[in-house]
Amino acid sequence: MVQTKRQLHLNLFLTGMGHHEASWRHPGSETGNNLKLSHYVKFAKKAEEAKFDSLFLADRYAVSRQGAKYGLQGGIEPLTLLSALAAVTENIGLIATVSTSFNEPYNVARRFASLDHISNGRAGWNIITSGTDGEAQNFHFKKIPSHGLRYEKAREFLEVTSKLWDSWEDDAIIADQEAGIFADDQKVHEIHHKGKFFAVRGPLNIPRSPQGRPVLVQAGSSADGIDFAGQYAEVVFTAQQTLEDAQRFYQEIKARATAFGRSPESVKVLPGICPIIGKTEEEAREKEAQLHHYTNTEFSLHQLSNRVGVDLSAYPLDGPLPPLPATDGHQSRTKLIQELALRENLSIKQLLLRLAGGRGHYTIAGTPTQVADLLEKWFENKAADGFNIMPQLMREGLDDFITYVIPILQERGLFRKEYAGTLLREHLGLKRPDTDTINLSAHA
Amino acid sequence: MVQTKRQLHLNLFLTGMGHHEASWRHPGSETGNNLKLSHYVKFAKKAEEAKFDSLFLADRYAVSRQGAKYGLQGGIEPLTLLSALAAVTENIGLIATVSTSFNEPYNVARRFASLDHISNGRAGWNIITSGTDGEAQNFHFKKIPSHGLRYEKAREFLEVTSKLWDSWEDDAIIADQEAGIFADDQKVHEIHHKGKFFAVRGPLNIPRSPQGRPVLVQAGSSADGIDFAGQYAEVVFTAQQTLEDAQRFYQEIKARATAFGRSPESVKVLPGICPIIGKTEEEAREKEAQLHHYTNTEFSLHQLSNRVGVDLSAYPLDGPLPPLPATDGHQSRTKLIQELALRENLSIKQLLLRLAGGRGHYTIAGTPTQVADLLEKWFENKAADGFNIMPQLMREGLDDFITYVIPILQERGLFRKEYAGTLLREHLGLKRPDTDTINLSAHA
Ligand SMILES: Cc1cc2nc3c(=O)[nH]c(=O)nc-3n(C[C@H](O)[C@H](O)[C@H](O)COP(=O)(O)O)c2cc1C
Ligand SMILES: Cc1cc2nc3c(=O)[nH]c(=O)nc-3n(C[C@H](O)[C@H](O)[C@H](O)COP(=O)(O)O)c2cc1C
Repeated sequence: MVQTKRQLHLNLFLTGMGHHEASWRHPGSETGNNLKLSHYVKFAKKAEEAKFDSLFLADRYAVSRQGAKYGLQGGIEPLTLLSALAAVTENIGLIATVSTSFNEPYNVARRFASLDHISNGRAGWNIITSGTDGEAQNFHFKKIPSHGLRYEKAREFLEVTSKLWDSWEDDAIIADQEAGIFADDQKVHEIHHKGKFFAVRGPLNIPRSPQGRPVLVQAGSSADGIDFAGQYAEVVFTAQQTLEDAQRFYQEIKARATAFGRSPESVKVLPGICPIIGKTEEEAREKEAQLHHYTNTEFSLHQLSNRVGVDLSAYPLDGPLPPLPATDGHQSRTKLIQELALRENLSIKQLLLRLAGGRGHYTIAGTPTQVADLLEKWFENKAADGFNIMPQLMREGLDDFITYVIPILQERGLFRKEYAGTLLREHLGLKRPDTDTINLSAHA
Repeated sequence: MVQTKRQLHLNLFLTGMGHHEASWRHPGSETGNNLKLSHYVKFAKKAEEAKFDSLFLADRYAVSRQGAKYGLQGGIEPLTLLSALAAVTENIGLIATVSTSFNEPYNVARRFASLDHISNGRAGWNIITSGTDGEAQNFHFKKIPSHGLRYEKAREFLEVTSKLWDSWEDDAIIADQEAGIFADDQKVHEIHHKGKFFAVRGPLNIPRSPQGRPVLVQAGSSADGIDFAGQYAEVVFTAQQTLEDAQRFYQEIKARATAFGRSPESVKVLPGICPIIGKTEEEAREKEAQLHHYTNTEFSLHQLSNRVGVDLSAYPLDGPLPPLPATDGHQSRTKLIQELALRENLSIKQLLLRLAGGRGHYTIAGTPTQVADLLEKWFENKAADGFNIMPQLMREGLDDFITYVIPILQERGLFRKEYAGTLLREHLGLKRPDTDTINLSAHA
């Protein structure tokens, strides 16, 4: 198959009912199925049939009682759900979010290696450091550790997991039944890691997986986050509100990767897009208004307060967003929200609706052609290597995107009609990493 | 359906190639498929068709280089594999091993709740504390923490996970789309746990699961282990070498449960049985000899040394087992091995073969009727509520057990022909636990 044109990548950001915060209240949403496997199997199979590169599940390590009251809260743990979906899909990539702040690297390395084995090479890891006190308090902390400390720990975490994934060389397994030799023990390495946060002996208790290492995905857009992405990330998720900001971010990530001695193609930048699709722009806007109608101001305010780390209930709804102090939480999202409110001169109340559809990701209510045009424009103008598709209403929105938008992208020669390989790395055009035995050879 | 007879329970202890340590060298074993999902799907479907109560996966948090050389080492992480199997089975229970020594209770509680949701109520947790330095060294310890400390931590771990599983009451979810109320926040509880080992605020980030809590399984047979089982376990796995020992253990577990205010029926005791089945006893013995022929003395000795915590390579193979010091590792298994060697007057070399088929579990090479007779005898004489079936050769052994032994048990009215319910709890005749809100009500 000769491909003349650079191809864009599509990830489906999977949720129960949709990315609009009120999606669960929409009459078309099967809210009662939120914890049923069959509900997700349906979406996964549709996305695979449509040739998406991958499915992605986000994660939070806490829910609040107020969150549970007004929002669809509490979901299936990502690696559990994606492991189940691995059994009923064949090609689509499976990207799970796991935090480096509340887990042990040995366990995480092996769970991703396990998912990569059972899926025949389709695992990806969205690496997060988590950003709220509510999560930290489920793991013996009083407050979330500082932003800098979390990223320092994340870097060491990745150093450990990388060594563990490489601790069995690709050709370590001999499996000679006659001779009774299962592995060449010269190719199975202890790693003897001793660092500031972790001490891990190794080897990993599972041989190297089909992709060598899972695809490393990252979504922090602060200075620390971009630095981390430059060193490790192969896919970067990001929320961007304007073409110019997206271009700037794209440049920055590629430059940072280059500075770490990597090629710019070795990291793919995927901004989030939250579409609502109508036959006409007007129909799309009506759908959007209907979803907005279901929002609950108290809940939206609670969510936004959590997101920016400031209790906004003390401020008048019709007034402007107050200046937000520097946060130890999710820095880049706080900055984006502040800039958006300023640029569009929004009251708090207007801002709540502006964020309802995608929490700061780019929202678009329009016709299939308008959506396709937007994607093409960002893709062709160095703002994106592809997109993180976030349907505001999961069922209808995914169907609409698959039925009406993907065929346009295919006609324009921008998106695959068939999977060319079987590994997630192959869908994304990423190299399979060699084992890095430099650190290991001392401990044969 | 009127059941006149007490029914026995069968769990399939799933492995890649078999419980005999040399099973992977047998020409009938597809050793290359050890990390392939399809390999396990086959076994899971067969076991479900045969109406086993459950599948079970063991776990270790380390492999040694020597282990990797001679043995089939390194496998898929249990919760990952069982999550995948949940997607392709409907009735069979799914019991995963997870250690309380190297994990966070919040993560473990939610992963089991997740598995219970996606399997519609089939999750079980085999609770272990882990017993080797090699494992501890993958989690920043130099040595494994002491036996007593591990069980103390395990008890607090279970206290935390139990509170978390109960933190959403069964009827907390309202999901009123019209009114915009997802949950009754008076029925979603923070747990505010603060103990010696853990501080966890809660609530869990997933609503209560179909079984309320996963079925709690446990396999420690030391004094600490039995005490823990009496308090928490609903299923107890155990290795027993004689009917008399099994009866004594059975009595002890039931008495311990009673002492904790539980009914004797609320805990099921399942000794392990490692069968090799032949048309005649002679044929079975030949099969056993063939498997023994594939063992490697160096490897067997390495395994046994690890198990008992003493390097046995310094002792003559034809001599007796030296006295074994008290261990901080797996106490009950060490005791069993010592008693077995003494009772049967075995040299180290003979002991290695005696343990090769099942690491101390009861091995039997015989006809289908002989195997069925054994099970019936133990079952009818207060030594067992059922069995942990551990085929020495996975593929052939499971097929033989299903084809020849299960029909005999069914004819004798001892084993189900159809599943009566859908929850693992229903297969096992265990009650669904109510939420224990006594601890929680203070923190509405
Ligand atoms: C598409 C996307 C998905 C994300 N998923 C998660 C997530 O699942 N859990 C989480 O805590 N943060 C998630 N984040 C937030 C980032 O990881 C967040 O920016 C980071 O935790 C804080 O990094 P920063 O301060 O470098 O921006 C996501 C962000 C984006 C753009
Ligand atoms: C059927 C069975 C399965 C077991 N599975 C595991 C296992 O997966 N991992 C493990 O470390 N120990 C396993 N064990 C060992 C027990 O958990 C072990 O006895 C315990 O860790 C030490 O407890 P004790 O000193 O109370 O006997 C198993 C034991 C039995 C009988």
